[in-house]
Amino acid sequence: MDQLHELSATTSAAVTLTKPLHCIVKLGGAAITCKNELETINEENLNIVSSQLREAMIVGPCHGMDWSRRPGSSEIPTVVDDFDDQLESDSKKFIVVHGAGSFGHFQASKSGVHKGGLSRPLVKSGFVATRISVTSLNLEIVRALAKEGIPSIGLSPFSCGWSTCERNIAVADTLTVVKAIDAGFVPVLHGDAVLDSSQNLISPDVFGVYDRPPTEPGATLLREIAVREDGSWSVLKPELEDMSRPVEITVAAHDTTGGMVTKISEAAMIAKLGIDVYIVKAATDHSARALQGLLKENIPDDWLEQ
Amino acid sequence: MDQLHELSATTSAAVTLTKPLHCIVKLGGAAITCKNELETINEENLNIVSSQLREAMIVGPCHGMDWSRRPGSSEIPTVVDDFDDQLESDSKKFIVVHGAGSFGHFQASKSGVHKGGLSRPLVKSGFVATRISVTSLNLEIVRALAKEGIPSIGLSPFSCGWSTCERNIAVADTLTVVKAIDAGFVPVLHGDAVLDSSQNLISPDVFGVYDRPPTEPGATLLREIAVREDGSWSVLKPELEDMSRPVEITVAAHDTTGGMVTKISEAAMIAKLGIDVYIVKAATDHSARALQGLLKENIPDDWLEQ
Repeated sequence: MDQLHELSATTSAAVTLTKPLHCIVKLGGAAITCKNELETINEENLNIVSSQLREAMIVGPCHGMDWSRRPGSSEIPTVVDDFDDQLESDSKKFIVVHGAGSFGHFQASKSGVHKGGLSRPLVKSGFVATRISVTSLNLEIVRALAKEGIPSIGLSPFSCGWSTCERNIAVADTLTVVKAIDAGFVPVLHGDAVLDSSQNLISPDVFGVYDRPPTEPGATLLREIAVREDGSWSVLKPELEDMSRPVEITVAAHDTTGGMVTKISEAAMIAKLGIDVYIVKAATDHSARALQGLLKENIPDDWLEQ
Repeated sequence: MDQLHELSATTSAAVTLTKPLHCIVKLGGAAITCKNELETINEENLNIVSSQLREAMIVGPCHGMDWSRRPGSSEIPTVVDDFDDQLESDSKKFIVVHGAGSFGHFQASKSGVHKGGLSRPLVKSGFVATRISVTSLNLEIVRALAKEGIPSIGLSPFSCGWSTCERNIAVADTLTVVKAIDAGFVPVLHGDAVLDSSQNLISPDVFGVYDRPPTEPGATLLREIAVREDGSWSVLKPELEDMSRPVEITVAAHDTTGGMVTKISEAAMIAKLGIDVYIVKAATDHSARALQGLLKENIPDDWLEQ
């Protein structure tokens, strides 16, 4: 993915990394949290994801980097006393981005903060409440990755100075992200509330994208989506039985991020740049193979067969 | 404090607030945490400080803005269902900065991250561990302020892109801070680890600055410190018995921020700009009176008498 050597943003000058970026991994909110339980992390999935990410990023041994006490626990954090400071491990450059899942959406939908109107007390309170919720999730993700030995650094879009104009990204200065990567860290960004409107950045809790809600009987997994020059997209594989029936993509009432439609459009925009985009279910053999780069040359025939 | 209308930084253009900033409050790490208990917040002090800050900032009623679940608690957060969206309250522009106390210092001193050397695995791990610790404290401070009704927004110096060069601030773009204030929020910044070296920004857990460690018998509280043009400072009041004996300021072994010497020098730099600096014990009548602006005209004679 050498195309990612240069990270540019709408209004900032292109910033160049000294070494090419290997991969951007988006962890879907639904994959790392229990989507139907308010502000609850899916610990099992998060641990598997963290382990898969460490295997994909770091070749060689590494030490745990979360030396903090758990809230409510009196246990002293474990710091490796015989830390091997000569330890040499080779690590690939990654960016991790995660969604909010059961964090943030409640506060955002309750206040309507994604619709704007910060001058209203309810919206202003909702903005503060949403940021508290999504930054607490970010801290937990950073801790899980650090515990695994990934040098993760939490970066909030709001703090990075990112903002939107009429819900489109207006300012997204990637300098801090690039500097963190160049210093050997793995930036961990997240869906955040930023000034003007909420801004969200793809891995859903299903095997991929279906032609209708995956819980519906007969829902078909889409294997290949083609992206046209204008950014619009259509399904190439499999051939849908009823081609006249549009792909139904639902947006949950509490989902303030636009649901899968927005996410596919964003994936399409990335694919247009010539960058491979894989949408896989987190914490599975599929995600592990995608992370290891095993899909780079060709997607095996058994891929996505369940 | 109209002098604070314009916030400038070393390398960024001066950014102007649409309304003048009323006050910058630095909460000492030792005042809001239990300094001798690893990663433990002084809940009582933090609650009093939050209440005093709300009284100083907001005139009129306000709603709680922390709608998140406590970790480990199954309790659903309270959102005001009968939220009065017409509520009009007048709020003053504030910035809150807090130290690390029993957060961060352990990780920083264990790894020597404040001495630099990010290429060493121990230092790199310590950088990640320090940021996890200080950002978790920041989140708790933001939550305490938000619960009180202060529209607090956590801003990490690292995420804001601030960096140092040989331990001096090299880049400190205040644009994000200014935008947050202009949008009606209260930025909550903190002592953070940033690229190049650790960077820390003043309210100790004592009544002020003493001529020797405050635990020593006969330690005298310094009432007035004069700042010379070159930034150096000396004690004006009280007249110290033995003028030849230098003021002893100790730095604890685990304190990676330079202790009170650095903090007084920083206060002196601010005072040189013509801005009043009050160093008061947090969560006391002293801090409340300083916050209310009651010391602006003259400091009463009973001030600092205990």
